[in-house]
Amino acid sequence: MEKRSNIIDCTIRDGGLVNNWDFSVEFVQDLYNGLSEAGVEYMEIGYKNSPKLLKATEPNPWRFLDDNFLKEIIPEKKFTKLSALVDIGRVDPNDILPREQSVLDMIRVACYIREVDKGLELVQMFHDLGYETSLNIMALSSVPEQQLIEAFELVKASPVNVVYIVDSFGSLDPSDIEHQVKKFKEMLPNKQLGIHTHNNMQLAFANTLRAMQNGVSFLDSSVYGMGRAAGNCHTELLVSYIKKPSYEIKPVLRVIEEHMLEMRQQWEWGYIIPYMISGALNEHPRVAMAYRDSDDRDKFVDFYDKVTSPESLPARASK
Amino acid sequence: MEKRSNIIDCTIRDGGLVNNWDFSVEFVQDLYNGLSEAGVEYMEIGYKNSPKLLKATEPNPWRFLDDNFLKEIIPEKKFTKLSALVDIGRVDPNDILPREQSVLDMIRVACYIREVDKGLELVQMFHDLGYETSLNIMALSSVPEQQLIEAFELVKASPVNVVYIVDSFGSLDPSDIEHQVKKFKEMLPNKQLGIHTHNNMQLAFANTLRAMQNGVSFLDSSVYGMGRAAGNCHTELLVSYIKKPSYEIKPVLRVIEEHMLEMRQQWEWGYIIPYMISGALNEHPRVAMAYRDSDDRDKFVDFYDKVTSPESLPARASK
Repeated sequence: MEKRSNIIDCTIRDGGLVNNWDFSVEFVQDLYNGLSEAGVEYMEIGYKNSPKLLKATEPNPWRFLDDNFLKEIIPEKKFTKLSALVDIGRVDPNDILPREQSVLDMIRVACYIREVDKGLELVQMFHDLGYETSLNIMALSSVPEQQLIEAFELVKASPVNVVYIVDSFGSLDPSDIEHQVKKFKEMLPNKQLGIHTHNNMQLAFANTLRAMQNGVSFLDSSVYGMGRAAGNCHTELLVSYIKKPSYEIKPVLRVIEEHMLEMRQQWEWGYIIPYMISGALNEHPRVAMAYRDSDDRDKFVDFYDKVTSPESLPARASK
Repeated sequence: MEKRSNIIDCTIRDGGLVNNWDFSVEFVQDLYNGLSEAGVEYMEIGYKNSPKLLKATEPNPWRFLDDNFLKEIIPEKKFTKLSALVDIGRVDPNDILPREQSVLDMIRVACYIREVDKGLELVQMFHDLGYETSLNIMALSSVPEQQLIEAFELVKASPVNVVYIVDSFGSLDPSDIEHQVKKFKEMLPNKQLGIHTHNNMQLAFANTLRAMQNGVSFLDSSVYGMGRAAGNCHTELLVSYIKKPSYEIKPVLRVIEEHMLEMRQQWEWGYIIPYMISGALNEHPRVAMAYRDSDDRDKFVDFYDKVTSPESLPARASK
């Protein structure tokens, strides 16, 4: 079972949510080379959303991936395949080349449960252009069962390769993950499954392991956990843990040593109390992120009072 | 099952291994009050080893607990019971008062598998003096099955209340923990079980949960994870997670906010790459700790090469 595992390193894509994709070309190249040497199967090198549709006023190469730019910076593909993420309503079909003309191998579609039909339209398009595809259903912890069943009827009939279980709020524990995986497997017997976790409660790695042990074969992670708010499952932990002759941890350690320690000084992610609280409450981390940007950033009791006050309750997602 | 859980906060005892017990009386009092308000069942306030037997040249009140001193600083017991840890060969029976004359409620005995007989002699003595007792078998990940079976014949016949599964090297994953718990339960049906984890691979909380879900009722933790090297399961995560009406997270958040952030600036513990590596290799963290004290502290690739070189292999414990 473990032999089938694929790690998708999301350092650039999800980590960019931390630092507005302030990554140098050299860093991205170094990461790509390191992941290739480490035997990591995929690297998600950014978003392939449209700057026009997002009314972007500044260039942001990892948020708005451009095929010509990608070919320049990665003139020669190595072991690791490249993937990009798109959001519903933010991607311009005219931006997408056929796979044989692109350095991208996989395009992943993030969507909420109510947009699954739109997500699958995009999947169909990317599939027809030759890409591997995935559908990443976000905020899963708040989706009612019946909605999931209806959405899965559509998913089953689509050509999507991988369907992701996304613990957007970092609110799930390993038992929850196992429950979800079993449900997904039962309802989508013809699809490969993926897992994307967040580390709010220090469970990202344990949740990923539990998913893998239950047959999930696409495992998202980031080097040193870099990702929005509490961050993701750590790539170095997966590479170290999974028994696969092709994985080498040293190239990942090198990336951490040469880049990530310094980046962690400059940017903040990981296990931080307000994110732990938002995870435990099954809430989007945006309130906690705003709090961390304020002068009150370390007033944890005050933060807890705010997010659990009766006034804030109606806004909370029920678990 | 969860209703039976007991949290033993080890911030002072295990955290003292980080800072040589450089805790102020005010901090310890504040922690005790916070844990009591939080509904945490036990606080391990230090070691009750003998300064004479350890040839200590300087006073160290939390390493060499003294009953008169304890009565002074905690004149009135609140909700939380107090425990102390002792090591084989380091405790002087003359130092131990009968429980009714002490503020301590529980004395725990740490030992390696080869010393279980000596550990149980101490347990018998503390039991006869009226204390709750536990036996904490260290370095479990390296103990051969047959040795465990033999040791457990002695344990079964002793009055010890709780037998601990101790993941000394932070090398176990939740499946390993479940396996150990099932073995312990089968071999020691008349004992309560405890779990003490380390966070080398970010699995301390997940391992503790898995143990709890399998019937382990004594859960060790530290506030903000403070403990030797990678530290322990975080008290705030347990208090937040376990559904028990008596648990309140805010007093723990207050301790973190008022004390732990500053202490973490001054002292180092937690998920740090050399500790991750020593956990993955099932090794004592001492080599990694020395490395973190050297100028090479952030040279992770070099550290990995050193600890995996053929010369260092004979010293490694086999998993």
